[in-house]
Amino acid sequence: MFLTRTEYDRGVNTFSPEGRLFQVEYATEAIKLGSTAIGVKTKDGVVLAVEKRITSPLLEPSSVEKIMEIDDHIGCAMSGLIADARTLVEHARVETQNHRFSYGEPMTVESTTQALCDLALRFGEGDEESMSRPFGVSLLIAGHDENGPSLYYTDPSGTFWQCNAKAIGSGSEGADSSLQEQFNKDLSLEEAEKIAVSILKQVMEEKVTPNNVDIAKVAPAYHLYTPEEVEAVISRL
Amino acid sequence: MFLTRTEYDRGVNTFSPEGRLFQVEYATEAIKLGSTAIGVKTKDGVVLAVEKRITSPLLEPSSVEKIMEIDDHIGCAMSGLIADARTLVEHARVETQNHRFSYGEPMTVESTTQALCDLALRFGEGDEESMSRPFGVSLLIAGHDENGPSLYYTDPSGTFWQCNAKAIGSGSEGADSSLQEQFNKDLSLEEAEKIAVSILKQVMEEKVTPNNVDIAKVAPAYHLYTPEEVEAVISRL
Amino acid sequence: MFLTRTEYDRGVNTFSPEGRLFQVEYATEAIKLGSTAIGVKTKDGVVLAVEKRITSPLLEPSSVEKIMEIDDHIGCAMSGLIADARTLVEHARVETQNHRFSYGEPMTVESTTQALCDLALRFGEGDEESMSRPFGVSLLIAGHDENGPSLYYTDPSGTFWQCNAKAIGSGSEGADSSLQEQFNKDLSLEEAEKIAVSILKQVMEEKVTPNNVDIAKVAPAYHLYTPEEVEAVISRL
Amino acid sequence: MFLTRTEYDRGVNTFSPEGRLFQVEYATEAIKLGSTAIGVKTKDGVVLAVEKRITSPLLEPSSVEKIMEIDDHIGCAMSGLIADARTLVEHARVETQNHRFSYGEPMTVESTTQALCDLALRFGEGDEESMSRPFGVSLLIAGHDENGPSLYYTDPSGTFWQCNAKAIGSGSEGADSSLQEQFNKDLSLEEAEKIAVSILKQVMEEKVTPNNVDIAKVAPAYHLYTPEEVEAVISRL
Amino acid sequence: MFLTRTEYDRGVNTFSPEGRLFQVEYATEAIKLGSTAIGVKTKDGVVLAVEKRITSPLLEPSSVEKIMEIDDHIGCAMSGLIADARTLVEHARVETQNHRFSYGEPMTVESTTQALCDLALRFGEGDEESMSRPFGVSLLIAGHDENGPSLYYTDPSGTFWQCNAKAIGSGSEGADSSLQEQFNKDLSLEEAEKIAVSILKQVMEEKVTPNNVDIAKVAPAYHLYTPEEVEAVISRL
Amino acid sequence: MFLTRTEYDRGVNTFSPEGRLFQVEYATEAIKLGSTAIGVKTKDGVVLAVEKRITSPLLEPSSVEKIMEIDDHIGCAMSGLIADARTLVEHARVETQNHRFSYGEPMTVESTTQALCDLALRFGEGDEESMSRPFGVSLLIAGHDENGPSLYYTDPSGTFWQCNAKAIGSGSEGADSSLQEQFNKDLSLEEAEKIAVSILKQVMEEKVTPNNVDIAKVAPAYHLYTPEEVEAVISRL
Amino acid sequence: MFLTRTEYDRGVNTFSPEGRLFQVEYATEAIKLGSTAIGVKTKDGVVLAVEKRITSPLLEPSSVEKIMEIDDHIGCAMSGLIADARTLVEHARVETQNHRFSYGEPMTVESTTQALCDLALRFGEGDEESMSRPFGVSLLIAGHDENGPSLYYTDPSGTFWQCNAKAIGSGSEGADSSLQEQFNKDLSLEEAEKIAVSILKQVMEEKVTPNNVDIAKVAPAYHLYTPEEVEAVISRL
Repeated sequence: MFLTRTEYDRGVNTFSPEGRLFQVEYATEAIKLGSTAIGVKTKDGVVLAVEKRITSPLLEPSSVEKIMEIDDHIGCAMSGLIADARTLVEHARVETQNHRFSYGEPMTVESTTQALCDLALRFGEGDEESMSRPFGVSLLIAGHDENGPSLYYTDPSGTFWQCNAKAIGSGSEGADSSLQEQFNKDLSLEEAEKIAVSILKQVMEEKVTPNNVDIAKVAPAYHLYTPEEVEAVISRL
Repeated sequence: MFLTRTEYDRGVNTFSPEGRLFQVEYATEAIKLGSTAIGVKTKDGVVLAVEKRITSPLLEPSSVEKIMEIDDHIGCAMSGLIADARTLVEHARVETQNHRFSYGEPMTVESTTQALCDLALRFGEGDEESMSRPFGVSLLIAGHDENGPSLYYTDPSGTFWQCNAKAIGSGSEGADSSLQEQFNKDLSLEEAEKIAVSILKQVMEEKVTPNNVDIAKVAPAYHLYTPEEVEAVISRL
Repeated sequence: MFLTRTEYDRGVNTFSPEGRLFQVEYATEAIKLGSTAIGVKTKDGVVLAVEKRITSPLLEPSSVEKIMEIDDHIGCAMSGLIADARTLVEHARVETQNHRFSYGEPMTVESTTQALCDLALRFGEGDEESMSRPFGVSLLIAGHDENGPSLYYTDPSGTFWQCNAKAIGSGSEGADSSLQEQFNKDLSLEEAEKIAVSILKQVMEEKVTPNNVDIAKVAPAYHLYTPEEVEAVISRL
Repeated sequence: MFLTRTEYDRGVNTFSPEGRLFQVEYATEAIKLGSTAIGVKTKDGVVLAVEKRITSPLLEPSSVEKIMEIDDHIGCAMSGLIADARTLVEHARVETQNHRFSYGEPMTVESTTQALCDLALRFGEGDEESMSRPFGVSLLIAGHDENGPSLYYTDPSGTFWQCNAKAIGSGSEGADSSLQEQFNKDLSLEEAEKIAVSILKQVMEEKVTPNNVDIAKVAPAYHLYTPEEVEAVISRL
Repeated sequence: MFLTRTEYDRGVNTFSPEGRLFQVEYATEAIKLGSTAIGVKTKDGVVLAVEKRITSPLLEPSSVEKIMEIDDHIGCAMSGLIADARTLVEHARVETQNHRFSYGEPMTVESTTQALCDLALRFGEGDEESMSRPFGVSLLIAGHDENGPSLYYTDPSGTFWQCNAKAIGSGSEGADSSLQEQFNKDLSLEEAEKIAVSILKQVMEEKVTPNNVDIAKVAPAYHLYTPEEVEAVISRL
Repeated sequence: MFLTRTEYDRGVNTFSPEGRLFQVEYATEAIKLGSTAIGVKTKDGVVLAVEKRITSPLLEPSSVEKIMEIDDHIGCAMSGLIADARTLVEHARVETQNHRFSYGEPMTVESTTQALCDLALRFGEGDEESMSRPFGVSLLIAGHDENGPSLYYTDPSGTFWQCNAKAIGSGSEGADSSLQEQFNKDLSLEEAEKIAVSILKQVMEEKVTPNNVDIAKVAPAYHLYTPEEVEAVISRL
Repeated sequence: MFLTRTEYDRGVNTFSPEGRLFQVEYATEAIKLGSTAIGVKTKDGVVLAVEKRITSPLLEPSSVEKIMEIDDHIGCAMSGLIADARTLVEHARVETQNHRFSYGEPMTVESTTQALCDLALRFGEGDEESMSRPFGVSLLIAGHDENGPSLYYTDPSGTFWQCNAKAIGSGSEGADSSLQEQFNKDLSLEEAEKIAVSILKQVMEEKVTPNNVDIAKVAPAYHLYTPEEVEAVISRL
């Protein structure tokens, strides 16, 4: 009766006596080790900003992709295991392309998010598309569809929420507090860029440069900022 | 002989010496951690009311869906793991649509509930549709068919019961007592709304607002209340 | 050599050194926790009577189904896990319907019972229809075919016996003794009803009412008593 | 090095260091708990006699089937788990019917026995027809074919032997000794009946009656004795 | 580091740190418990002789088959688990029949032996034909083909060797020594019969009789000796 | 609670409580035992240089392949388990050939790298192409496509980064420092060759010779240096 | 943390914390228990020589095959588990025959070796052709193709190297040293024969005779020496 945690947490998809799923909670820990990403929704579009950890000066900064396009009208920022994020994004890209092909119109942001989470939920099931463990990644999904701009946050349990602003990764706790203070519904896109990058700056251990920060917006199309555009935002701080 | 519980509870679908299925019991614990939901049946229809836990002011309240439509004439309220509930509801939606297509008439509420529970029962079987663990969710299924209004309650073991009124989730114990005191078969829908929300108010730690409470009715069609309609019910308390 | 029981009882289908199958024995324990059910065979038909545990006044008593129809000429009473019983009964319903369709005549009661037990025996085999653990349920199967009325009793090992009278569930021990004293082959259906319900009354902790007792007969067709008919039997005690 | 038995006996199909297969040995224990069955071969046919344990006076004795027909010319008596025996007998029935259909002649007794044992041997293999554990049953297979009458004995390892006389089940040790003393090759069928039942009487704890003993012969066709025929044999003792 | 043997020997097909496969070695132990079998090759053909353990006088000696025909020109003697031997022999029979059908000529003795060993090697692979553990049996395969007479010895690892003479089973150690002393390449078949049976006599605990010894030769066709022929060999000792 | 690491690291694809995947980390250790490989990107093409450990003078140096061609325009250097690297490279070769066949043009270097990593990520999934453990290998992938020269680095988790210069294997730590000091974007191919081999020389325990060093370039086509070409580079040091 | 080796070495394909694959290392141990084999490459062809352990004078020496032909132009010598080697060689024979059939020309020695190693690498994958454990065998593969003579050495990890000369098995350490001293690139085939057999003689515990040594050459066709040819080589020592 004294064996509390260690006995339950290795079954990839088993409840503990308290009704907890430890493998999902541990996957969440993997994200707390990840780099910080921030999303802010405005009435004109959504801004994503991420910290890039360039561990060596010989790394090509542009190859550290923490923000990825899913479709013309949807992009996402990630924190956690990079390869897991790529698998989820690739799945979402196929889904959105299939949707366009079948229905002749873009997939809504919510349906895209739901498709991503369906895959994430089915870990440990042994079927062809799913993983044998939870995906160790959180995503901020920014999009723009017939309902206007929207920002979704997903976690390793396959659950998602719609947010006005959200931070994930190792600096998420402090960043979320700052977001709550600074966010209001009337922000312009330019203000949102500034808020996102200034909060990233607080939680990063290094100086903010176009090399270690990526910014993207969906307004209404996905656009990843060039180093010059990033530099411009930084210079406005 | 002294190893009592810990030895049996990790096998997802194994009996203990006392004839218990621990994984199902632990899944039930997951629900006791969930937000409270209440259902009340009247002669005119069924009312569902749920607590929504808005953990951050930046979360979009409408994206925290604790009440979901299954078909025109059936809706449900959930407590427990959100992603599990979505899987069950999605399964039920497909079943009811298939039924309409095949038979040209709506599926009865009981058949829909049975279809949901069939999926819930088959965890650990390794086939394509089932989960490798019990679903960590309880549902209150409200519907209206040729037999009039009905309210069903399902648990993680795949069992269901028909009720006149029922509460699930962390506040269910106190809420059930209050329901027994206040329920009678001649309640009007308006009275049921008031009872459901007033009991939610007792078990919630925060003030009741349109942001943290959702209400729906099936009378005879499913309708999710707008924030204004929720506000109106709250103001009647 | 001193490790006696605990080492063998978790393998779902493994013999212990004494030649025992513990998972089957533990499933049997699940039934001892169940509500009591009684079956009595007469020359005119078979009577089934069950205790219904109505845990809340808000539960719809008629939705607690402990007696279920399998075909026009066969019904059964259950004790143990409700969802497991539903799976077995659903399987039997399909079998009897297929038989009628293929052969143009009703399936015999013994063949129906055998079909049920074939499914129950194959737990842990990993094929599509079977469970990964024994079914935690006992059934009393009442029927009427070319051989006249018959009553079968099944247990979790997939074994069945034909009986003149039998009780299952938590009160089965005392009820079986009473049945042995009161049963004789010349009982009328009315006497059998009275004996079954009076014995239920002894083993139940509450007062017997149409709300917490269900009665059915197969004589020669299956008929579940209305609350009024149940009330009439109770009033004859 | 001191861990002797307990480490090896749970793998369903694993050798111990001494070259033993414990699960097969434990299945054999299940048979030692079973009721006693006796077979005696004469030049005119084979006699099978079994003890039936009628645990309750309300049980229908004829539904406790310990002797079963496989084909017109083959029958068998069993000791051990009833449901396992039914599975083996059902398999043998299909095999003998297929043989008649394919070749227009009855299957020999040895081929039928071999087919039964092939299934018994393949436990733990995971294919569709086999069990995940050894079958906990021994059979005495009596038959009559072009080679005259024959009696086979099978055990849980899937091995079989041809015998002149053989006892299985809880009383087999004493019964085998008595058979060795009383058997000779010139016995008539009537003498064989008398020997089989008189030995059963010695090993049973109760009085021998048509209710708790079944007799069958294959001479040359399978025939299960009616209660009157059993009574007649008993009265000859 | 001190856990030496017990940790490795239960994985059916896993190497120990010393590069040993324990399950194969334990299967070899099963053979050391088996009855003794002897094969002797002469220029005129091969003689096989085996001990039969008749545990009860009521057993039909001819049903204890320790020497089996594979094809007209190949026979084998076995020691170890009877049911395992039957499976291997049945496999070899199918292979030799297929070969005759496909190529219009008998399969060579070496190819037949190789086919047997291929099956024996693949234990634990989970495919349809193989066992989940090593076969607990050794075989002496005697045959005659275009290369003249030959004798092969197979073990549970699926390895085989060609021999001039070989003993297997519980008495194999002493019997092998005697064979080395008495064998020479110019033995006649009659001398080989006498040597084989006289060595069996040394290692058996009982008197040698036609009941407990079987003899066969392949010279060039397979022939199992009648009791009279066995008696004749014994009388020549 | 005190069982920290050993409990989690054997599940091939399970998170530890800290969110770590130990099998991936241990595979990374396999690479730290491997020989050193270095890649340097210039504006004219990419240079790869590897240490070859020739454990015996009788080994054919050219058969120790640590640099392999994937397609005309892509090559890679490896460190870790040779057989694992061969599997990945073979997979990449098939992918690039398929791409040429389907689209009539070479696959980009990034797509090729992504295809390699997709396979690496899916270990433990049980499908046909993937391994049951992580691939114990890191690769430096050098290529030249429409975007000019590029150098990618992959690790056992299935993640990849684009680099200007990178070292892998047992000497990677020191080599990476040296690369950071000596690399600049205006290096000529000849300078890159010299830098790569001179750094290899520092981290290798033996004298650098054409026997124990391989060099290749992609500029723009893949070319593995002949021993004479290697000798020429060494002589320039 | 103190559990070092024993915890990791039973998973057939799992990394230890140091990045080691213990099952492969243990399979390598199986080879160290095997008989010694030696290969020597000359400009005119390759010589293979092996020790044969004839454990009994009654064994047919020619049936202990330690050198096997793969195709006209390829042969191999083995050390380790005989049955494993046969499986690999049989696989290679099928591959080379398929190649001849498909392309009308012999398979190169390197492609043949690669095909062998592909099978060896995929142990534990559960697909049809692979083993559930590493193959416990090393091979020396001698061949002659358009590139002239070549000698390959394979180990249980599925890795291979090209060598000028190589020894495997229990005496490999001493034999490799002797080979390094005596090998030079200008050896004639006759000198290579002499060196190979004289080194075998040093590491074998018994006198070298045509019975316990096999020799083969590929020059350019595979030829296994007759006992007379072996005797001739021995007499030249």
